[in-house]
Amino acid sequence: MLEKVLIANRGEIALRIARTCREMGIRTVAVHSTQDRDSAAVRFADESVQIGPAPASRSYLNAAAVLEAAVRSGAAAIHPGYGFLSEDPHFADACEQTGIALIGPPAAVMARLGDKTSARAAMVSAGLPLLPGSVEPLDAASARELAEEIGFPVILKAAAGGGGRGMAVVRDPSEFAAAHRRTQAAAQALFGDGRIYLEKYLERARHVEVQVLADGHGDVLHLGERDCTAQRRHQKLVEETPAPGLPERLVADLRQAAVAGARATGYVGAGTFEFLVQDDAFYFMEVNCRIQVEHPVTEMVTGIDLVREQIRIARGEPLGLRQEDVRPRGVAIECRINAEDPAADFRPAPGTLTAFVPPGGPFVRVDTHACTGYRIPPHYDSLLAKLVVWGADRDEAIARMRRSIEEFRIEGDGVRTTSDFLRRLIDDKRFRVAEHTTRFAEELALSAVDE
Amino acid sequence: MLEKVLIANRGEIALRIARTCREMGIRTVAVHSTQDRDSAAVRFADESVQIGPAPASRSYLNAAAVLEAAVRSGAAAIHPGYGFLSEDPHFADACEQTGIALIGPPAAVMARLGDKTSARAAMVSAGLPLLPGSVEPLDAASARELAEEIGFPVILKAAAGGGGRGMAVVRDPSEFAAAHRRTQAAAQALFGDGRIYLEKYLERARHVEVQVLADGHGDVLHLGERDCTAQRRHQKLVEETPAPGLPERLVADLRQAAVAGARATGYVGAGTFEFLVQDDAFYFMEVNCRIQVEHPVTEMVTGIDLVREQIRIARGEPLGLRQEDVRPRGVAIECRINAEDPAADFRPAPGTLTAFVPPGGPFVRVDTHACTGYRIPPHYDSLLAKLVVWGADRDEAIARMRRSIEEFRIEGDGVRTTSDFLRRLIDDKRFRVAEHTTRFAEELALSAVDE
Repeated sequence: MLEKVLIANRGEIALRIARTCREMGIRTVAVHSTQDRDSAAVRFADESVQIGPAPASRSYLNAAAVLEAAVRSGAAAIHPGYGFLSEDPHFADACEQTGIALIGPPAAVMARLGDKTSARAAMVSAGLPLLPGSVEPLDAASARELAEEIGFPVILKAAAGGGGRGMAVVRDPSEFAAAHRRTQAAAQALFGDGRIYLEKYLERARHVEVQVLADGHGDVLHLGERDCTAQRRHQKLVEETPAPGLPERLVADLRQAAVAGARATGYVGAGTFEFLVQDDAFYFMEVNCRIQVEHPVTEMVTGIDLVREQIRIARGEPLGLRQEDVRPRGVAIECRINAEDPAADFRPAPGTLTAFVPPGGPFVRVDTHACTGYRIPPHYDSLLAKLVVWGADRDEAIARMRRSIEEFRIEGDGVRTTSDFLRRLIDDKRFRVAEHTTRFAEELALSAVDE
Repeated sequence: MLEKVLIANRGEIALRIARTCREMGIRTVAVHSTQDRDSAAVRFADESVQIGPAPASRSYLNAAAVLEAAVRSGAAAIHPGYGFLSEDPHFADACEQTGIALIGPPAAVMARLGDKTSARAAMVSAGLPLLPGSVEPLDAASARELAEEIGFPVILKAAAGGGGRGMAVVRDPSEFAAAHRRTQAAAQALFGDGRIYLEKYLERARHVEVQVLADGHGDVLHLGERDCTAQRRHQKLVEETPAPGLPERLVADLRQAAVAGARATGYVGAGTFEFLVQDDAFYFMEVNCRIQVEHPVTEMVTGIDLVREQIRIARGEPLGLRQEDVRPRGVAIECRINAEDPAADFRPAPGTLTAFVPPGGPFVRVDTHACTGYRIPPHYDSLLAKLVVWGADRDEAIARMRRSIEEFRIEGDGVRTTSDFLRRLIDDKRFRVAEHTTRFAEELALSAVDE
């Protein structure tokens, strides 16, 4: 069963998935764009199929081309990674109809959870707390009325959105109408769906998410939570587990809420329940129906290979693991090293790497597709490497991250990275004492500009 | 205390020590030969001092030069790593007299355990089982008499030896006299000390060693055992923890024996008690008074940074850890990737690396000083990288090791490595079912020649 898996992604995650497949004795097919023909994942995989040129709409987002590659290569399943087609219920549908297993939840579950509105409705039924706001999409007038009722600031979000795009915070009632128009237009452009909903905006929130695993036999468990509060423009920069400085009771409730949400929706596979936390209360945000960029921190503390579990679940195997068997140890932190120029508003700064020597030694993991000589293509997201460290406690993990960032040698023509910014971030007192909020990283970025 | 540490070593271990120092906020001084002036450890360290040219006798083994560098740079302590001066009691003495802390046991303990004869005597007092053989050095006639008494095969060993050098197995009584002469001459040449002792040689033995930690306050604990049975000419090739396929009772006894031995000898620091195991019995071999090459496997299952513990103990801190706090998880395996040509009797095969891309991903650790462009100097041992993996169980760890060896890209002019040989080794059924002995790797190497 699942003797061959097609990997419908690129970059570090394609390589990471191929690694686990190899360890499980599963053959891999890497699909790739013309630009990625010499990529690490293509070199590593057993087979590769070119499916089109950049941009992604003509290759990695081309569902028909991906499916055709799967059929032709005889792959029994597709691992979609994150981004691209990973949360597209139409693609999941097409896979089901073609008789190819998509490694993820069933298409119907994905569709229900992918739409923010129906996801919220499902979570209300499961008893999860939501932020004050709408469950249904709202026109401008009703949205305005609701905003007045729950009080500013509020955040407008695209119902079909995700990945931090198509959102706007409105602090001043006088700016509401313009912001609503802009967000609607952006949502239409980005997702082909202009529907908007609205929530209370939390000024001092922490982003905390819970990793769940659910098999096809009704068993659900959680692998603890991750704190992803350090974000910039809703893009995560630093993630860690366990979430530091939160009351034990709150963390236990969060974990239970995620398990309850997964049970209530018939979730199958690995999934992530995202919450905002403020003033010792938590609010459901969304479910990510896929592997997350930040999954390695969970792997490092639990010793569980999440991609392996995804594949085992897709093969119909039971979890074979009880909640009490999951015994996280220590603290893990991930920093996303992007090829971006922090001095130029984090603009992508691709180029050719003349030196690329990741750090090593105890309790350091680097997931990357880059190497010396790699030409970073300008067509894709700028994630260059995920630097993940483990420590017996948070201080040890932070010291190790600091050492590892300093040790990481990345040089290249035109290449700039976020390394220095990340070092400043983890050195900052607010991060050290875990009193940072989702606005912290942006404030830090602005303060650098002011200096 | 210990604000600055001098690292009296080179290669991967110098870098590995410097990494932990950095994480602890300790400044580092790297001493180096002229050949190593651009090494990774030198680049990483806060300061560096050139102490002479290759060979090692004129630099890394030059105790006076190392001590002078420590005094001049104001280092409060010296970390000797493994090999070189790490187990030289004269060097330990000189450090004590200069008021510089040597990170390791006191000179007197090192002297007592470094001499195989006095070490055996100490272990007899501590109640540890020894192989049938001599405790005192023997002349040729008495040695021959004892060999007849305990029965052939026997092994002749240099009393002042170590690292697998200055040994000879004698299977046939008629070869005894010549072997004794050869071993005595070799011991004199290698260690300046021709004294020889003799033990029963075990044909189907496993090499199992126990890692201990002892603080200066009388507390001693063990961090489990390592199986280092896969050896070639007494040089370890593959190490793993826990030791597979041994009876639980035997393993518990081994661990307790090591703790008893450390207590009885007033051991302080990190140390390793080496044993041979055959037919459910174990026999003490020797104590290594230093960090071991294979220490990372213990770190991966326990989550304890051994270099950090060494430094904490050297600072006079208590272990701060009880035996029951040490909870190993899963299985870790290390493969030593050497720049050697297996097809030419493992002759060193140095050169310049044109590509060097270590594997990454979940539960993989690579300790190396090499990188693309690195010129492997011909003057030193041929260890290029330690590839260490962790798995939830032994099968997962082996599958991950196999994947990681395949993924490791090492190319270079004239460079050959042991990678393929190691892959064959871990693929071999005898290794898979843990029925290999200390002769297994040599048989495997010979079988390749026969093919």
